[in-house]
Amino acid sequence: MSKNFNFTLLSNDFNARAGILNTKHGLIETPIFMPVGTLATVKAMGLKDLDEIGATIILSNTYHLMLRPGIEVIKKFRGVRNFMNWEKPLLTDSGGFQIMSLSKLTKVNDSGVEFKSHLDGSKYFLSPEKSTQVQNFLDSTISMQLDECVPYPIEKKKALNSSILSLEWAKRSRSSFKHKIGYGQFGIVQGSLFPDLREFSAKELIKIDFEGYAVGGLAVGENQSQMFHTIDLTTKFLPKQKPRYLMGVGKPDDILGAIKRGIDMFDCVLPTRSGRNGQAFTSFGPLNIKNSKHSQDKKPLDILCNCYTCKTYSRAYLHHLFRCKEILGAYLMTKHNLYFYLNLLRSARNSIIKKNFVKFEENFLKKYYSYKDGI
Amino acid sequence: MSKNFNFTLLSNDFNARAGILNTKHGLIETPIFMPVGTLATVKAMGLKDLDEIGATIILSNTYHLMLRPGIEVIKKFRGVRNFMNWEKPLLTDSGGFQIMSLSKLTKVNDSGVEFKSHLDGSKYFLSPEKSTQVQNFLDSTISMQLDECVPYPIEKKKALNSSILSLEWAKRSRSSFKHKIGYGQFGIVQGSLFPDLREFSAKELIKIDFEGYAVGGLAVGENQSQMFHTIDLTTKFLPKQKPRYLMGVGKPDDILGAIKRGIDMFDCVLPTRSGRNGQAFTSFGPLNIKNSKHSQDKKPLDILCNCYTCKTYSRAYLHHLFRCKEILGAYLMTKHNLYFYLNLLRSARNSIIKKNFVKFEENFLKKYYSYKDGI
Repeated sequence: MSKNFNFTLLSNDFNARAGILNTKHGLIETPIFMPVGTLATVKAMGLKDLDEIGATIILSNTYHLMLRPGIEVIKKFRGVRNFMNWEKPLLTDSGGFQIMSLSKLTKVNDSGVEFKSHLDGSKYFLSPEKSTQVQNFLDSTISMQLDECVPYPIEKKKALNSSILSLEWAKRSRSSFKHKIGYGQFGIVQGSLFPDLREFSAKELIKIDFEGYAVGGLAVGENQSQMFHTIDLTTKFLPKQKPRYLMGVGKPDDILGAIKRGIDMFDCVLPTRSGRNGQAFTSFGPLNIKNSKHSQDKKPLDILCNCYTCKTYSRAYLHHLFRCKEILGAYLMTKHNLYFYLNLLRSARNSIIKKNFVKFEENFLKKYYSYKDGI
Repeated sequence: MSKNFNFTLLSNDFNARAGILNTKHGLIETPIFMPVGTLATVKAMGLKDLDEIGATIILSNTYHLMLRPGIEVIKKFRGVRNFMNWEKPLLTDSGGFQIMSLSKLTKVNDSGVEFKSHLDGSKYFLSPEKSTQVQNFLDSTISMQLDECVPYPIEKKKALNSSILSLEWAKRSRSSFKHKIGYGQFGIVQGSLFPDLREFSAKELIKIDFEGYAVGGLAVGENQSQMFHTIDLTTKFLPKQKPRYLMGVGKPDDILGAIKRGIDMFDCVLPTRSGRNGQAFTSFGPLNIKNSKHSQDKKPLDILCNCYTCKTYSRAYLHHLFRCKEILGAYLMTKHNLYFYLNLLRSARNSIIKKNFVKFEENFLKKYYSYKDGI
């Protein structure tokens, strides 16, 4: 493990864990939600906003940053953190997922992937070595190995072959990782919903000895109980003393269920993307602010929320902003949703420390599932 | 004059004036720039942003607010200030300009104007009485009379007839104005570029005795020297002890020229609209952040500016945000531009108090005109 990149497990409540991740760029209290900053910006949020909502780590995307602003600009600024003036930790994905989902593939072989930009068709090449090197240029506090993501459902044989390819890429990613004090690199467990493939993938990855392990290949179409089951049978093979990151998940209830199963880190576009589209996450369930029932409502989005949006603006005003397609609407809803997520995870963490997580989750879900379109 | 709606002239430097406008909702130091909040939101700006840039009064639009959110919602919130949670003074225009420029007119007669919404074609009626009543519902600190705006150029006879109609509407607006402590209503001088019409309009308006006077019908296609000339020959007929508002103007150099000619108050969409489109106003002239020359530039937009954007972000980062059409770009540029305008007017005010305005303007313009697309 890189020096000074330490994960300390402070407390657990059954399988739920509260910890502290110590990195070059700051401490991260886990469980943690990482706002997604695809293009070196958490959409609609300035640095002050990220401070106000209490973000301690954000995520950005190797694939997108390679295309825009491009590696030359990032190198000139000595990393994406300097480029966007974000001083705290940054996690970057490896680009694998976007190559599969966004770009036009030209060639996949053992050495890597040739692909065309989804923006202008220009050609790029990504290999485990290249992805790791680029993430080093990005000055990522936490780099991810290059992996292959498979769709769901998938035949077992294909899932096995893909898991083997991802493991090969894991080794090559690790070999090319430049160890620096306080920086880390995570391996990614694949294997679709097949228990034996997950076990195989986890055990092989552990031999490579990363600073942390991600559970990949979920939230791709399976239902919640399938996802929970796969998390259960994956985390039991992961070392207790290293952080565990569930990639791309999810709704508030998904996240609590995953925390209960031993996950420490999360990222998802839902709070930001939904916010821009008019959906708020609240203590009383999701709420669509575009619904005309809110047009004269003086209540805040969430009567239990202490965020800037809820302390300052009414549903009627937010409804008006969305009706008029005003930028301020996207900003205020994004800020609320991110605050809601980060606050949910802070509260979950406190409940784990108090050995009260199960009750906490039960109370949360009871309120969360009880109303339609807000209280 | 309504009680406690007082304008105090503190200082003058030739015709340039520094004053304080005391209103129900707070003090306004003049000369002042009023950010435009058409739909009860200064586009992309939250209340914290308006505080940070030092806004002391904003402007909103009767026409737009009648359509969305509509008067019923505004009544329920007892005014647009409560609706948007803005505690400081608000000026609203009368709706006249938008009826002419945006909506489909169905009928103009002595009693008022029938028009169809530019959004959905639904019918509305606006008269001097109705506009004044609506502005009362809006809880506008400063209401504007309903007036007719004429295009440029225009035949003198048409300009005369329109001036006469606007004067008639001024009287009816004034008769229906509900006098409340600390609130005021302004009349609007029209008359296109015709000196005798401007004199006639100004003198007749003064007889009606408003709390302030606006110069309307400029920034409609005439050049800067024509505008300055018309301001000169209008302000000389206006009472020294009342505030003077030049509607819809303008670029930084327009504003300084108008301050020199005795104008106290300004509004314009330029800093907000240009900001969203990628144009920054800087001490060294306008700068188009979309220009690829900025793509690797570590300098702030304006090396002399102390705003949040300039203290935090580089041109390269802002260029990237605009290239990627990120909301944050529109937000940061709007915030810079508004700060730049408000700071320019604060500096102008200080120079008037120090009897140094002419030198101040000269120095500003020398820098402002010296560079192309930023220093």
